[in-house]
Amino acid sequence: MDRNAPVGVFDSGVGGLTVAREIMRQIPDERIIYFGDTARLPYGSKSRDTIIRYSRQIIRFLRVMEVKAIVIACNTASSYALETVQAESDIPVIGVINAGARTAVQATRNRKIGVIGTEGTIGSGIYTEVMRQMRSDIEVFAKPCPLFVPLVEEGLLHDSVTDEIASRYLNSLKGKYIDTLVLGCTHYPLLRSTLRRLLGEEVTLVNPAYETAVELRGLLQKQNLDREPDASLTGEKYQFFVSDLAEKFTSFATAILPGEVKETKKINIEEY
Amino acid sequence: MDRNAPVGVFDSGVGGLTVAREIMRQIPDERIIYFGDTARLPYGSKSRDTIIRYSRQIIRFLRVMEVKAIVIACNTASSYALETVQAESDIPVIGVINAGARTAVQATRNRKIGVIGTEGTIGSGIYTEVMRQMRSDIEVFAKPCPLFVPLVEEGLLHDSVTDEIASRYLNSLKGKYIDTLVLGCTHYPLLRSTLRRLLGEEVTLVNPAYETAVELRGLLQKQNLDREPDASLTGEKYQFFVSDLAEKFTSFATAILPGEVKETKKINIEEY
Repeated sequence: MDRNAPVGVFDSGVGGLTVAREIMRQIPDERIIYFGDTARLPYGSKSRDTIIRYSRQIIRFLRVMEVKAIVIACNTASSYALETVQAESDIPVIGVINAGARTAVQATRNRKIGVIGTEGTIGSGIYTEVMRQMRSDIEVFAKPCPLFVPLVEEGLLHDSVTDEIASRYLNSLKGKYIDTLVLGCTHYPLLRSTLRRLLGEEVTLVNPAYETAVELRGLLQKQNLDREPDASLTGEKYQFFVSDLAEKFTSFATAILPGEVKETKKINIEEY
Repeated sequence: MDRNAPVGVFDSGVGGLTVAREIMRQIPDERIIYFGDTARLPYGSKSRDTIIRYSRQIIRFLRVMEVKAIVIACNTASSYALETVQAESDIPVIGVINAGARTAVQATRNRKIGVIGTEGTIGSGIYTEVMRQMRSDIEVFAKPCPLFVPLVEEGLLHDSVTDEIASRYLNSLKGKYIDTLVLGCTHYPLLRSTLRRLLGEEVTLVNPAYETAVELRGLLQKQNLDREPDASLTGEKYQFFVSDLAEKFTSFATAILPGEVKETKKINIEEY
């Protein structure tokens, strides 16, 4: 395996860019190939079988692009597909669940942790399972928030409707006196200020993106897969691919990544 | 072509069942094969190219099932793909746009018509184009309502949040003094009472499903493709297929169709 090869990062759409951004910040020497499955999003309301099939196609594409490791930067795909695709893969594959779970378990003081996510992520029960394996005396309260993704995609980040919906979703969690909340969907950090206002300063909000980048860095170093800082670079350091609407993706990516995204290529993912 | 063959009806998901229901009511002798593309929904926010590719795959599947005619029971797919797939097909293919446009043009008295739909349908400009071809002195005011589908799918049919969102979307149309509104997405008839309350009794709400069934009946009769009432029937009269979440679809279909739906089969639409 070429230690100077890129890392593959994928998500159903733009949400995983928050994970890519953390990798860029924390391990700036690494090259990234990002794929967003914009022709088939959202993933959160679809079945395990379908998400595993989609994830396998994307991993085949990323292998054609000769990545050295893969980050599933989507909570739903991490929930449903990580174990399956890890078992099939001869290169490292990590998801976002373990990182988020570990941070929350370390952060809680009263051992009451809330998790919000898509119907798929919450229905899988994986955050609860992983956190209770890490520490068995933890109580986990999970709540699916299916309208958050469409509200974010409509840009209603600071809006009375989003406040009202968020208030309904969080009401049951507030009644459980959680002191830590895992933002178990890559779109949700964009609602951080709304969630912060509703929950108050005393609840720690955990965004798995940061810890995922920490985990990736450790893994690459351990396996001698970290890129040499002086390795030669042909072409763009960061490359972006989607299955639909490449221009819209480019605008969005430019808005949330530190540098300008010059180009996004559209591919037919069903051919992989 | 076998006049006793079934009619194929497709949509991105469950919305097109409102069209299937009208066909069942108005031409009860006809058999139906319904396909809902639940693994790739929604269609409304995706590109023309992608929607044409998906529509072609579905039509190939329906041809394998030996349908005699096809109804595109989805406004977005009708907007983007109808013309292309009609030109490629040797069996009749109809969409929902013409039927809805014709009803609205006949219903208006002040020649001011509103159209609401997905970003795809409204962005295509097709309702405006078709209605102005039918009658050039008509003014059309179109408004995309991207949050209506997720709100309907969450079951918030009678809810203060839906009222608030609908009020924002309809505000600009109310200012134009429209007397007719086309519900240009198959999900929207489920919001009829909310829309009615906000617009008042004087605005005619047009649901293209009814007229689409009328158009299909006329077309089948004209081409001698209408099913013989005493034709033998092997298997179920109505068959349902989806690309994901068959059980969830069965429950939904049973709730909105007149009879019980016993089974929905899941297929891999990408193989077509």
